[in-house]
Amino acid sequence: MLREREIAPPPAGLEGALAERLGQKTMPPGALGRLGALAIALGVAQGRATPAAAPAEALIFAADHGLVAEGVSAWPQDVTALMVERLVLGDAAAPVLARAAGAQTTVVDVGVAGAYRVPLPALIDAKRRPGSRNAAIEDALTPAEVRAALEAGAAAADAALARGAVILVPGEMGIGNTATAALLAHAATGIELAVLAGPGAGLDAPGVARKLAVLERVAARRPGALEPEEALAAFGGLEIAAMAGAMIAGGAGRAAVVVDGFIATTAALLALAARPELRPSLVFAHRSAEPGHQRLLEHLGVEPLLDLGLRLGEGTGGILALPLLQAAAAIMAEMATFESAGIAGP
Amino acid sequence: MLREREIAPPPAGLEGALAERLGQKTMPPGALGRLGALAIALGVAQGRATPAAAPAEALIFAADHGLVAEGVSAWPQDVTALMVERLVLGDAAAPVLARAAGAQTTVVDVGVAGAYRVPLPALIDAKRRPGSRNAAIEDALTPAEVRAALEAGAAAADAALARGAVILVPGEMGIGNTATAALLAHAATGIELAVLAGPGAGLDAPGVARKLAVLERVAARRPGALEPEEALAAFGGLEIAAMAGAMIAGGAGRAAVVVDGFIATTAALLALAARPELRPSLVFAHRSAEPGHQRLLEHLGVEPLLDLGLRLGEGTGGILALPLLQAAAAIMAEMATFESAGIAGP
Repeated sequence: MLREREIAPPPAGLEGALAERLGQKTMPPGALGRLGALAIALGVAQGRATPAAAPAEALIFAADHGLVAEGVSAWPQDVTALMVERLVLGDAAAPVLARAAGAQTTVVDVGVAGAYRVPLPALIDAKRRPGSRNAAIEDALTPAEVRAALEAGAAAADAALARGAVILVPGEMGIGNTATAALLAHAATGIELAVLAGPGAGLDAPGVARKLAVLERVAARRPGALEPEEALAAFGGLEIAAMAGAMIAGGAGRAAVVVDGFIATTAALLALAARPELRPSLVFAHRSAEPGHQRLLEHLGVEPLLDLGLRLGEGTGGILALPLLQAAAAIMAEMATFESAGIAGP
Repeated sequence: MLREREIAPPPAGLEGALAERLGQKTMPPGALGRLGALAIALGVAQGRATPAAAPAEALIFAADHGLVAEGVSAWPQDVTALMVERLVLGDAAAPVLARAAGAQTTVVDVGVAGAYRVPLPALIDAKRRPGSRNAAIEDALTPAEVRAALEAGAAAADAALARGAVILVPGEMGIGNTATAALLAHAATGIELAVLAGPGAGLDAPGVARKLAVLERVAARRPGALEPEEALAAFGGLEIAAMAGAMIAGGAGRAAVVVDGFIATTAALLALAARPELRPSLVFAHRSAEPGHQRLLEHLGVEPLLDLGLRLGEGTGGILALPLLQAAAAIMAEMATFESAGIAGP
């Protein structure tokens, strides 16, 4: 999985140096709690003694899912294209929140099925096919299509890094993608589908039950543990593959990669299964209201920064955490030390 | 308690109008979780159909506590003045985080005992006396001193409002003030001192036990429930009185008032005990690592926005929450509606 991208380990001694520098700041030891830990983690992710928080860029990957023909979403498939319009034109939640956080938003079409009603010159076109095939019937993607989606994600991350980005927030838009993510997460972790099948963008309880029945049927077609690329081919998720590719390229390029909710965490699971050396590059942003997300976080042994009950997707939870990264970087860069302030330490 | 400040109820129908407007945004109902609730609460606090997030101002009140002579703090009293220097010069945690959040910081001396080593022209001087008296021996403040501190806080809020502030974050600096806050919170709520006496800025377990013994002795001098002004006179806390005054003036001026940690929440308890109509103006920012804070939050029935284990004071937890208020305001102001986007609603 993008094996040619080398993710180098953090420089030896960097974590200790960051912790020592933080300990010299004019405050009681540990007084910043998790913000202090975040400052250290950010520096480690970036390989920098002074972590940086800008420029940050949200990379939003959009694609459709043939599986929606089985009735796994509360919304019709054409909403994906309609929401891509809002994302590109800047008035969906993600670009609004990104502007508020001082971050740029880039939107990449890696397989949207519907047509756009307006010209979208700022949209990156990396579409190979109009959505995954229906995984209930056949494999959703060919190995070549999986590879192309991974590469499209990596290329988007490369372009952001070339623009100077030091933090990336991969996000997604794709009606039906909590269903696909549940299948991928199940294949990667073995967590039961009954835990992973949730309301997504608004299914009621009978809808969740129908979704679970579909997922059980799809998983039975390709049972057991699957390698990340096998799982993506079996179940689809062009945007999820692209997110995994962006995460790997981001880590290889020494960006900190902020992980959003259920779908982004699934992408991170796939990337980590193939490339465990990515782990220090990842910052887990928030706990989604999608019930399965908590189990994925437990599986990874991480406690995210925010817990605000979001279930919107688009990278919104990751974008909302950016000001905490900015705060952590500012503490390391700007705060006085006991020595500089002429105060006896603790 | 500042009875001449009228805190008008929120305009009738405003909460419903804000909720309806949020529901028209292009996202599944409730998808923003607590951020959506925050957008509504911010509008209600400000009495505005379009909540505003800027300008925001941190108001940091500093004072000393005669009670530190009893050994209730891990730090010597002169650290208060030394940290005020850092706060005013801009390299303590609070002004660093405020700059990162685009907020202004104003520091008010309402009773610092020590001398400053450098000129601090930006410091607001509202000092009536060099710290509270030792509450273990005598009443810490006269009623006139309490009143002056309340007025000093209100005056600082008034000045911020005159500068255009729509959000205020009262913060504090005062060696020993978790001890004073524990006494005040005990008198206001009846919660046991054993719950409210915590490590503050770094006491070890024997230190906390010594602090508790002192607090039990002080509380025995003025036992039982006390009115807010009585409690402030008995136990002191010039900066805590000033925070309460700033909260009341902020609410009267239709600013949203962001409540920081243990000490700020104690100030809010006093303000609310005297002026329950202040409640819709308050946004609770974070859960402090100071153990008693959780009990105060439960007493108030609130769930704060952040839970990052901070125990730094200075308003830092409140300042860290400002970007969430900015995000909530941006959602209401900038996000498309289903109608404007030409998308069929849920």
